[in-house]
Amino acid sequence: MTWVEDEAFRADQPFGPQTLPYGVVDGQIAVRVGDQALPLRPIASSFGEHAELVSADTLNPLLAAGRQAWTDVRARLIELTQAAAAPKGATLIPIDNAVLPFQVADYVDFYSSKYHAENAGRIFRPHDEPLLPNWTHLPVGYHGRAGTVVVSGTPVVRPHGQRKGPAFGPSQRLDIEAEVGFVCGGPVTSRVSTSSAADHVFGVVLVNDWSARDIQGWEYQPLGPFLGKSFATSVSAWVTPLDAFSAARVHTPPRNHPVQEYLVEDQPWGLDLLLQIDWNGTIVSRPRFADMFYSFAQQLAHMTVNGATVRPGDLFASGTVSGPDRDQLGCFLEISWGGRDKITLAGGEQRTFLEDHDTVRITATAPGPDGSVVGLAEVAGTVLPAS
Amino acid sequence: MTWVEDEAFRADQPFGPQTLPYGVVDGQIAVRVGDQALPLRPIASSFGEHAELVSADTLNPLLAAGRQAWTDVRARLIELTQAAAAPKGATLIPIDNAVLPFQVADYVDFYSSKYHAENAGRIFRPHDEPLLPNWTHLPVGYHGRAGTVVVSGTPVVRPHGQRKGPAFGPSQRLDIEAEVGFVCGGPVTSRVSTSSAADHVFGVVLVNDWSARDIQGWEYQPLGPFLGKSFATSVSAWVTPLDAFSAARVHTPPRNHPVQEYLVEDQPWGLDLLLQIDWNGTIVSRPRFADMFYSFAQQLAHMTVNGATVRPGDLFASGTVSGPDRDQLGCFLEISWGGRDKITLAGGEQRTFLEDHDTVRITATAPGPDGSVVGLAEVAGTVLPAS
Repeated sequence: MTWVEDEAFRADQPFGPQTLPYGVVDGQIAVRVGDQALPLRPIASSFGEHAELVSADTLNPLLAAGRQAWTDVRARLIELTQAAAAPKGATLIPIDNAVLPFQVADYVDFYSSKYHAENAGRIFRPHDEPLLPNWTHLPVGYHGRAGTVVVSGTPVVRPHGQRKGPAFGPSQRLDIEAEVGFVCGGPVTSRVSTSSAADHVFGVVLVNDWSARDIQGWEYQPLGPFLGKSFATSVSAWVTPLDAFSAARVHTPPRNHPVQEYLVEDQPWGLDLLLQIDWNGTIVSRPRFADMFYSFAQQLAHMTVNGATVRPGDLFASGTVSGPDRDQLGCFLEISWGGRDKITLAGGEQRTFLEDHDTVRITATAPGPDGSVVGLAEVAGTVLPAS
Repeated sequence: MTWVEDEAFRADQPFGPQTLPYGVVDGQIAVRVGDQALPLRPIASSFGEHAELVSADTLNPLLAAGRQAWTDVRARLIELTQAAAAPKGATLIPIDNAVLPFQVADYVDFYSSKYHAENAGRIFRPHDEPLLPNWTHLPVGYHGRAGTVVVSGTPVVRPHGQRKGPAFGPSQRLDIEAEVGFVCGGPVTSRVSTSSAADHVFGVVLVNDWSARDIQGWEYQPLGPFLGKSFATSVSAWVTPLDAFSAARVHTPPRNHPVQEYLVEDQPWGLDLLLQIDWNGTIVSRPRFADMFYSFAQQLAHMTVNGATVRPGDLFASGTVSGPDRDQLGCFLEISWGGRDKITLAGGEQRTFLEDHDTVRITATAPGPDGSVVGLAEVAGTVLPAS
């Protein structure tokens, strides 16, 4: 029996003892235990040489400390949270005040769902081949705006912008993109191999890459999305350690041709995550992350193969997670097929894109060790009217 | 007579008393006076309430302090450097050890030379209209990698990457892009108007947006340049204050149609800078910044019109500065017309793109007050072989 009294701190719950994600609450690092948070500063002395890392006010020092420190701290946390008696000074506090737990250095967004890339191609470029020739050879990606990455729960104001015409005004096609994000750490380095990628990835979050499709559609040629994305990108308040996904590792789907050597994996780094997209209380999609064509290890190898460095605090996202079926699509652009088809929510509301005051919550779970379930903390946001 | 003994600290020289750019040398903020540096920490008490800002080890606190502090500090510096006697504790030191003077928050790269955009369109997409329909309506731009912005003088290792084929290896078409960069500061804010843009721009640098054209050409559809750019972006070691350009302000070129209201300027923010590109000792181009279609004020207004915030340390670059003539082009892709035409350097060397050990130096000057000349510090870099 653990001293942690929380009904959700159980192996069959997403934030049980097998998960232990990190966040920042009330100015200090905390670990989520069920539906409560265990602040680490009061029990920092339990972490020996890592006492200072866990006493910081953001995760960045821990991110910088690297793989061995991550392993040590997690091992100690497992002991501490499964002990019969609480460590001296330990208290459990509400998780409600969790803030963005790390300072984002560079933010990169990939595009690694074949289903999504094909669908987006069909919708945005109906007269061309949906998948461009490079897509099956490299994980297409681009840099996003680090300064507007916000924590789950932050309201998202409908952006203004130019759309085709041109016309200017509040976006009329505000969308989500359900993605999985990877939080980087360890020494600043470049040319990370797929086999060492896990040494540079501390943990995993959910990402909602809010997208204004009308702004994006008008601006994105030839240099890519810019203002259609940069107004806000939401991430989970809790970073689930990569180590929690040992039982969720799968191979990426089969390919029609080999990839370049730097993208070959000697171990599987696909992750068997099942996402769930809740729109005003209706589950509209359940995308499977195992369908992604490129793993995070391949993405990180690609991102650094040109000599670009990866730094603690770098965040890269998978790209919209979409599957082959309509109830597995990761954005409303696809579900509504470019706005053509209405989506009916519980209570009869009809939607194509987001309306003001709509709320979207994305959650995800993966198989954990011994039949347990490992969770990614939700990324939620409510749309506020253009101001 | 000033106490500053430096032959280059004269009104007819780019780093005379009319310029006073800021850098960081030996771990402290310094101001460039001619070809020497005046560290500010030893004379911080001369800056009154701003003593702490000028004593920092990067420019970021000064950037955050905002327009009034920038004006105050510069006014005081003008007094101090024109006084007959040195302030107590003042010493002049070499400029050689200048490091990247600020921590880059987000880095955005625009594409605001019409000549460059048309030329790049003709070279990259020979079968389409060179200028896409959005180009004359908004300053096209995209996010780059902040973590690989390096200071002038940093060697640039030839990047590896995928090119069309696909094939993998060291880039065979390594190029430069001569640009002008704007360093942001002031309070974190969004929806900056063109008329208040100068309150959020601390100063100006030169930027070399090194570009691997073969990598870029293969990867950039549909989400824009990524690894073809992210290996390195060089900036001047010295940030020339925006205030130094009061005599260089010009209107942007005439347009065929009006722009959206948020892009209209009520004062001219074009800058009459003349750039110079030196390739292994040969001046190969002299691009005119006054030819740029969008000003930095329009770029900043655009970048934030969707609600995205601008933060101290944000850096945005103009895009390659190219003019109508071959000796006014800002990158070798254009000068060699996609590699078709050889460029002959002094001594008879022939080039299309960069070879290993080549050195490129970009400099720029603008008219200063009373017939003086205001300089942007050089951005230089030497190509090292792929490793």
